[in-house]
Amino acid sequence: MIDLATYAARAQQVIAAGQFLYGEGWSPATSSNYSARIDDQHLAITVSGKHKGQLKAEDIMVVDLSGQPAQSSLKSSAETLLHCVLYEWQAEIGAVLHTHSRAATVLTRLLKDQDHLRLEGYELQKAFPGIDSHESELIIPVFENTQDIPALAEESMVWLKQHPETPAYLIRGHGLYTWGKTMADTLRHIEAMEFLMACELDTLKVTR
Amino acid sequence: MIDLATYAARAQQVIAAGQFLYGEGWSPATSSNYSARIDDQHLAITVSGKHKGQLKAEDIMVVDLSGQPAQSSLKSSAETLLHCVLYEWQAEIGAVLHTHSRAATVLTRLLKDQDHLRLEGYELQKAFPGIDSHESELIIPVFENTQDIPALAEESMVWLKQHPETPAYLIRGHGLYTWGKTMADTLRHIEAMEFLMACELDTLKVTR
Amino acid sequence: MIDLATYAARAQQVIAAGQFLYGEGWSPATSSNYSARIDDQHLAITVSGKHKGQLKAEDIMVVDLSGQPAQSSLKSSAETLLHCVLYEWQAEIGAVLHTHSRAATVLTRLLKDQDHLRLEGYELQKAFPGIDSHESELIIPVFENTQDIPALAEESMVWLKQHPETPAYLIRGHGLYTWGKTMADTLRHIEAMEFLMACELDTLKVTR
Amino acid sequence: MIDLATYAARAQQVIAAGQFLYGEGWSPATSSNYSARIDDQHLAITVSGKHKGQLKAEDIMVVDLSGQPAQSSLKSSAETLLHCVLYEWQAEIGAVLHTHSRAATVLTRLLKDQDHLRLEGYELQKAFPGIDSHESELIIPVFENTQDIPALAEESMVWLKQHPETPAYLIRGHGLYTWGKTMADTLRHIEAMEFLMACELDTLKVTR
Repeated sequence: MIDLATYAARAQQVIAAGQFLYGEGWSPATSSNYSARIDDQHLAITVSGKHKGQLKAEDIMVVDLSGQPAQSSLKSSAETLLHCVLYEWQAEIGAVLHTHSRAATVLTRLLKDQDHLRLEGYELQKAFPGIDSHESELIIPVFENTQDIPALAEESMVWLKQHPETPAYLIRGHGLYTWGKTMADTLRHIEAMEFLMACELDTLKVTR
Repeated sequence: MIDLATYAARAQQVIAAGQFLYGEGWSPATSSNYSARIDDQHLAITVSGKHKGQLKAEDIMVVDLSGQPAQSSLKSSAETLLHCVLYEWQAEIGAVLHTHSRAATVLTRLLKDQDHLRLEGYELQKAFPGIDSHESELIIPVFENTQDIPALAEESMVWLKQHPETPAYLIRGHGLYTWGKTMADTLRHIEAMEFLMACELDTLKVTR
Repeated sequence: MIDLATYAARAQQVIAAGQFLYGEGWSPATSSNYSARIDDQHLAITVSGKHKGQLKAEDIMVVDLSGQPAQSSLKSSAETLLHCVLYEWQAEIGAVLHTHSRAATVLTRLLKDQDHLRLEGYELQKAFPGIDSHESELIIPVFENTQDIPALAEESMVWLKQHPETPAYLIRGHGLYTWGKTMADTLRHIEAMEFLMACELDTLKVTR
Repeated sequence: MIDLATYAARAQQVIAAGQFLYGEGWSPATSSNYSARIDDQHLAITVSGKHKGQLKAEDIMVVDLSGQPAQSSLKSSAETLLHCVLYEWQAEIGAVLHTHSRAATVLTRLLKDQDHLRLEGYELQKAFPGIDSHESELIIPVFENTQDIPALAEESMVWLKQHPETPAYLIRGHGLYTWGKTMADTLRHIEAMEFLMACELDTLKVTR
């Protein structure tokens, strides 16, 4: 049974995350989807097609780890499976956020022949777990965009199982996926990734 | 007879749209004009020359589909006819928004020999009706700016009747027109177009 | 005698203008100065060195048209004389705003051998009085920066008396001066100038 | 003994500074650290790893001028020593702010072979103490980033004792340190530095 108080608390975290992320311009035009773990079998996730800055309690639903609705007749985000495989992969993941920022979109399109974004020498890399120096190298994979979500779910897991320290991935021309133990950690990862991607894009505007 | 409750509700939608659009910087310096359909013969539209972030009830008037004021001695926007022909063209259009963003202005001036903006490969194209893959191609026509509004109204209709799936058009050095079944849909179209135009402009800053 | 209610109302307009202009990022780090006409001999103007987003009633003082404090022991902005000569030049000017935006600073430095900014083909030029088509040409003079305010006051008047239709001027690496019949008109001029300058700067980022 | 009312007042200034600086985007993802002097031996400083826009009273602690916690079991920022040496250097310094802006990060990385940023001809240079003309030259040193804080503290002092008029320093790929007599002065220095760095970066986007 789903604990209702936990469900309500997670739904509230998702709603607050949406207000922040929409306000930053990272979830425009009903794009993006967000989730938070309820228990070892369930997550709260956004219903498909909602305005992310104006989420209401009824815009958050519960699915199980295979993506099937639980105690709900609503339709979850088309990308639900990308969330599910992350929660299944690591028991300690408590939240997954997917955003569609301008920087993520433009930068991944500009890196057109590259399957990753490489970051080095930024103090802000230390915002990610396990990084304690700007001298480390941070590799964020860039997957090709597709409407075939099961294929993308599998591709993400192939990468992540080989590189379990990865804190985020990008989908070309589409956006960012990141995760963390808590919603606060996951929001910190988004802020850090958006900062770093914006720096990279600014740099390209000068150097190319 | 115009149903007054419907008029008041549509006027309120227009006021709220203005607060949002001005806040985003897309309707500076009293530019832009907005409308919402009241019934099959009438629309609520902004009075000429008002601050779009501070619209009051008396800044919204009613015109019929030929652009003539109804139950009003006010003067509607100079571009009223561009709204009217859209409502006449498709009975299901419920709102029309015209904005003057920096991205729309700069991008259409830079595309100086092109009569359209071509978008492809962006996940956010799915924000428009009938688009379910980033692999589709989205063509937004760019008309030359003119102070001859009847001529522009005719030009827009010639294009739209040939390309009825078009979700928006641009006027060079001037701004964007978009429409939708509801005000919420139309605002989503603006967010998506502004996102896509900003991405294109960012890309030009790197690649040109 | 200065009418105290008029003084208080003008001071309140100046305070509200500061909150808006600081919020837009156009008056950072205590820069800028603002004024509003009280009567044919007096203006309310900001005291030197105040945070423009946090102006209080006591941060606004009165000076006469020669720049001398009236009923006050405070020190007005170092650039007070630039305001005074505008009010003396045209009796219908009701407000003068001077801002220090990034776009004004960068653009005037980039236009290093030019004594003016030329704008053409922008629909938003119609935000200025007497302009009813984007096909008009708008010339904004750019004066060299100097700490010699009386010299700059004279230089501005030499230009303006020859080109009385000019709605604004720029000082290189420094900022914008604009004016209007009312505070609302003057704020509209700032919004329009900032929009146009930002468009010009964006264009240079692509084309140069 | 630490005066508790002074401690509480300084902590409140630090909290308010964080709300402003985070809101401007200059302290993302729990980066940055801020302090204010309590007396000739103590400063209030942010606890390590907190969200800078949501600081609470318990997120501010006291350290002495050698960086040791006073009346506290909390852990201060890893960069505490960089604050301490500034307070020890000049008795009149009342606040020190360290921020991580995009402009500071990108600009210092682009200036890769230079050990300083040179600013000249900007009116806004007058926001710093002792500068009364745009014709002055402002040199901001850029130190290489390192995780060896004692070494960086020493390097900063070697420079500052030779150039005591310096109002700020940069750390490459990392951020800005600035200080002032009061928190308000220090915030003004940040606004001015961020404005000037953003202008320099914009200029590089056009000229390179």
